[in-house]
Amino acid sequence: MKILIIGAGGTLGQAVVNELGARHEIVRAGRTHGDVRVDLRDAASVTAMFRDVGELDAVVCTAGKVPFAPLAELSEARYLEGLQDKLLGQVRLVEAGTPRLRDGGSFTLITGILTEQPIVAGACASMVNGAVEAFVRAAAIELPRGLRINAVSPNVLVESMEGYGPFFRGFEPVPAARAALAFSRSVEGRQTGQVYKVW
Amino acid sequence: MKILIIGAGGTLGQAVVNELGARHEIVRAGRTHGDVRVDLRDAASVTAMFRDVGELDAVVCTAGKVPFAPLAELSEARYLEGLQDKLLGQVRLVEAGTPRLRDGGSFTLITGILTEQPIVAGACASMVNGAVEAFVRAAAIELPRGLRINAVSPNVLVESMEGYGPFFRGFEPVPAARAALAFSRSVEGRQTGQVYKVW
Ligand SMILES: NC(=O)c1ccc[n+]([C@@H]2O[C@H](COP(=O)([O-])OP(=O)(O)OC[C@H]3O[C@@H](n4cnc5c(N)ncnc54)[C@H](OP(=O)(O)O)[C@@H]3O)[C@@H](O)[C@H]2O)c1
Ligand SMILES: NC(=O)c1ccc[n+]([C@@H]2O[C@H](COP(=O)([O-])OP(=O)(O)OC[C@H]3O[C@@H](n4cnc5c(N)ncnc54)[C@H](OP(=O)(O)O)[C@@H]3O)[C@@H](O)[C@H]2O)c1
Repeated sequence: MKILIIGAGGTLGQAVVNELGARHEIVRAGRTHGDVRVDLRDAASVTAMFRDVGELDAVVCTAGKVPFAPLAELSEARYLEGLQDKLLGQVRLVEAGTPRLRDGGSFTLITGILTEQPIVAGACASMVNGAVEAFVRAAAIELPRGLRINAVSPNVLVESMEGYGPFFRGFEPVPAARAALAFSRSVEGRQTGQVYKVW
Repeated sequence: MKILIIGAGGTLGQAVVNELGARHEIVRAGRTHGDVRVDLRDAASVTAMFRDVGELDAVVCTAGKVPFAPLAELSEARYLEGLQDKLLGQVRLVEAGTPRLRDGGSFTLITGILTEQPIVAGACASMVNGAVEAFVRAAAIELPRGLRINAVSPNVLVESMEGYGPFFRGFEPVPAARAALAFSRSVEGRQTGQVYKVW
C-alpha cells in the first residue's frame, strides 16, 4: 500500500512510520519536515499536498495541536485554535483526500484519551477529540467507494511523559509503538467507524 | 430554584418548562421569544442576558442549531456554523454563566443521539454533539464553587417526527416530556460530568 502519514516526524508519527513502513510505501508529511509540507489549518495547503502525492491507499494523521489552559482562561479564540487545527484540519484531510484514495482505502485520524477521561486544563483537547470521534462514526456511513475511516485514541505516550507527566498523574502511559499497532489495525484491517482505544 | 432556560419556546424547551416550572421559578430565553432575548452565537448577547437575569441556581440549554447536509456537501463554512451555534454557543453560556450561578448551581446542556448513532447528512450534528459531551466531562472537573455541568442526549423526539422522520427511520422516538425528565435529574440531582441518554 501507499500510505500518507501527516505528522510522520512527530513522537507518535515516527512510531507509526516504523510499524507501517516495514510493509508499505510511506509518504511523510509535516509542517516543517517530511517528503511533503502541509499545514492542516490551511485548506489550500491540504489540497496542494494531495495533488502532489497522487493516488493513495491510506491517509494517516498523527498531527493536530490543541491549546492546554485552565477552563477559566480558555477564550473563544483558544477554542477556535484547537477546532481549526486538530478538528477541522483532520476534516480537511477527509474532504480533500476522498477523491485521492483508491477504492476501499482508509483514513485513520488521531484523538486521545481526553475524550473520555478529562484532565485539568484539557477542556479544549477533550472537546476536539470528542468532535473528531463522533465525526469519524458519522463519516463512516457516508464515504463513497468502500472508503473507511477510524480514529486512534491513545493514552499519554511513554515518550511524552517528560513534558506531559505533571498533567497526567496516575494515567498509565503507553509506548508509542503500542499506539502504532492501532493504526496498523485500522489501515490493514477492514473495519470502519471505529475508535481504537489504546488504554 | 431560579432556572434560566435558553430555548424555552422550542419543542424540547416547552417540555422542560412544563417539568421544571411546576416546582421552580423559570426565566425563559430565546432568540425571538421569551422573557429575555439572546443569540447564542454572539458572546456579547450572552453576557447581556446574564447581566439582565441576575443570580441563578441553574442554566438549562435547549437551543443550538446545526446544519444537516450530505458529507460531500458539508463545507468548512457549514461546519463552522454548527460549531459556532450549538458548540461554542453552549460554551459561552458556561463561560458567562459561571459567575452568575449560586454555589452548587448547575449547567445542563443539550446534545443528542447522533453523537453515537449517526445518520446520513448528520456529520456536523454528530461532531458538535461529540464535542459538547466531551467538553461537559472536562468542564465538570474544573468548575469552581461546586458548580455542576451535565448534558442530555435525547433520541429524536416524538413531537419532531413529522419533520425529522425520514432522517431517523428505525430510531425509537421519545416524548419530549421524557427527555425533560433528564433535565430535572441534572438540575435537581447532584451529579456532574454526566451525559444522560434518553434512548
Ligand atoms: N504525545 C502523546 O502523549 C499523545 C497522546 C494521545 C494523543 N496524542 C495526539 O497525537 C497527535 C500527535 O502527538 P505527538 O505528541 O506525536 O506530537 P508531536 O511530537 O508534536 O508531532 C506533531 C507532528 O505533527 C506535525 N504538525 C504539527 N502541526 C501541524 C500542522 N498544522 N499541519 C501539519 N502538520 C503539523 C509536526 O510536523 P513538523 O515536525 O514537520 O513540524 C509533527 O510531525 C496529537 O494530535 C496529540 O494530541 C498525543
Ligand atoms: N427535536 C428533536 O427531535 C431533538 C432530538 C435530540 C436533540 N435535539 C436538540 O435539542 C435542541 C432543541 O431542539 P428543538 O427541536 O426543541 O428546537 P426548536 O423547536 O427549533 O427550538 C429551538 C429553540 O432555541 C431557540 N434558539 C434557536 N437559535 C437560537 C440562538 N442562536 N440563540 C438562542 N436561542 C436560539 C429558539 O428560540 P426562538 O423560538 O425564541 O427563536 C427556540 O426556542 C437542538 O439542539 C436539537 O439538536 C432535538
